[in-house]
Amino acid sequence: MKIIVDAFGGDNAPLEILKGSAAAVAAYGCDILLCGDESVIRKVAADNQISLAGMEIVHAPDVISMEDEPGEVVKTKKNCSMAEGLRRLAAGEGDAFVSAGSTGALLIGSTLLVKRIKGIKRCALAPILPSDSGFYMLIDGGANVECRPEMLEQFGIMGSAYMEKVMGIKAPKVGLANVGTEPTKGGELQHEAFSLLSKAPVNFIGNVEARDFPAGVCDVLVADGFTGNVILKLTEGVAGTLFGNIKGILKANLKGKLAAAMIMPGLKAFKKRMDTDEYGGAPLLGTSKPVFKAHGSSNAYAFQNAIRLACDFAKGNVIGTIEESLQGSK
Amino acid sequence: MKIIVDAFGGDNAPLEILKGSAAAVAAYGCDILLCGDESVIRKVAADNQISLAGMEIVHAPDVISMEDEPGEVVKTKKNCSMAEGLRRLAAGEGDAFVSAGSTGALLIGSTLLVKRIKGIKRCALAPILPSDSGFYMLIDGGANVECRPEMLEQFGIMGSAYMEKVMGIKAPKVGLANVGTEPTKGGELQHEAFSLLSKAPVNFIGNVEARDFPAGVCDVLVADGFTGNVILKLTEGVAGTLFGNIKGILKANLKGKLAAAMIMPGLKAFKKRMDTDEYGGAPLLGTSKPVFKAHGSSNAYAFQNAIRLACDFAKGNVIGTIEESLQGSK
Repeated sequence: MKIIVDAFGGDNAPLEILKGSAAAVAAYGCDILLCGDESVIRKVAADNQISLAGMEIVHAPDVISMEDEPGEVVKTKKNCSMAEGLRRLAAGEGDAFVSAGSTGALLIGSTLLVKRIKGIKRCALAPILPSDSGFYMLIDGGANVECRPEMLEQFGIMGSAYMEKVMGIKAPKVGLANVGTEPTKGGELQHEAFSLLSKAPVNFIGNVEARDFPAGVCDVLVADGFTGNVILKLTEGVAGTLFGNIKGILKANLKGKLAAAMIMPGLKAFKKRMDTDEYGGAPLLGTSKPVFKAHGSSNAYAFQNAIRLACDFAKGNVIGTIEESLQGSK
Repeated sequence: MKIIVDAFGGDNAPLEILKGSAAAVAAYGCDILLCGDESVIRKVAADNQISLAGMEIVHAPDVISMEDEPGEVVKTKKNCSMAEGLRRLAAGEGDAFVSAGSTGALLIGSTLLVKRIKGIKRCALAPILPSDSGFYMLIDGGANVECRPEMLEQFGIMGSAYMEKVMGIKAPKVGLANVGTEPTKGGELQHEAFSLLSKAPVNFIGNVEARDFPAGVCDVLVADGFTGNVILKLTEGVAGTLFGNIKGILKANLKGKLAAAMIMPGLKAFKKRMDTDEYGGAPLLGTSKPVFKAHGSSNAYAFQNAIRLACDFAKGNVIGTIEESLQGSK
């Protein structure tokens, strides 16, 4: 298994990317193809005693930043680490590609350089969110602001394949994000997507109301990218605000600090369960080869997890499964 | 000030509605016109020692339930307490109408029996949500699943008028729910709504990302009813899940229980701040006379608050302000 890594993507690149890659080589025995400025990679590795064993380096001097227009990845920034990695993936020089860089650039670059699976209308970003019963996949998390019903059907098919093959869930429950559970709820997009998903080769459980998302009533939550992005960011926002307030109460005075010490093990276990670093980021589903988006804020641990999931993404033959399901849905 | 009350709307009607109404008469000195089955009202009041001083009763024997199709409020259930109250409001027999009954029925009934403000395209439900800096209004909370840009502009104008006149916020900050802060973010609906709101007679602060809603960066958050409903219910869902887990940690063992006792005052104050009963429900904005939707689960305290807000809604001349703003936006 060889994973192609964008060594210059994300807030903590290249140091945390190199650390995470080295840890992944040690833990999973995979090979890594690092894309980025070779001299900088070698210097950062040497300065921080990071072993480059099991890793090759492909020199790519440019960097596409969060400030760049996403389209620049195939225009003025053709020689950036992300574009180079995607070209190598397309050429079959590795089994999967991982980047913590700009989501927009990764979407455009993947679509143009790696191409979509035949028949897939749009690629979607599919983050994994914590829930009361474990976790669930949200698809689309924000790649496609405007969607047609057949795109939502395909999101359900792709998400189901990933959750089964990579996350090990048998017959994943697929739900449609809606304003009520009755089939007549929502607008035209939801009505038609409901009808298509009912006939698709997935375990469709119907509409799911937003109140029930965090409870984990489904394994794959299908939404257009606008709604999905709101779901993703609002979940983070509400959780962050509440944790901030609880923290404030626990730090307010001596009693609070004593209380904090008493419930620390429980709080820590809960925090770990809620920690998205465990899930490493989000697969990009719909490309003809596995592309994995690590969190922009990835530290070494999160990036190592992203590499592990990219290995499973390739090993699990998710893309072959999606291709078969597309045949089944026709 | 005379408030018309639907005595048979909501999960806890008529008992909690009667208690809340009696408390409102005592606290605010308003008069109340109770709509509902007169003999039942008199019996429940007598059985529970609730004074009916300051209240008149209009006999309306039917009840529209959550199971009824909303449209039945003007068809087979014409004699229900809600329809009767709306007709009395339209006839000028009271200054505002409050119901904890079916939201769908209230929307249809208000639109058909009370009518919209001239020029207003759609009525919107405008719940108040807690935020880190106090609270904010979400408009539309779910009345209109599919929206046009000019509807979003009007939601901003109506929300701004209410927050200024009823909640006492000077030049309320109006934000547009979107997937990023740049004006180019979102789909066609958001682009056009952004442009219209920029020229509208409100303090428009631009797009707001979902991560920032709970921080309270704006006083009025404008969204189409589909997105708004997801925001409303997901906020409740995430908060409920997190509180449930924290509660579990605090009840897990003796240490947890001791810790709970130590931080109880802080937790209670925080819970009160998050408690939507304080805000009593949501105004329905766009009708030609004040209509206020109390929570379906309202207890006496929440319903009393709803009556207070309905009084302020009428006193504040919100509808006159909206009419003036509509002139200004042309």
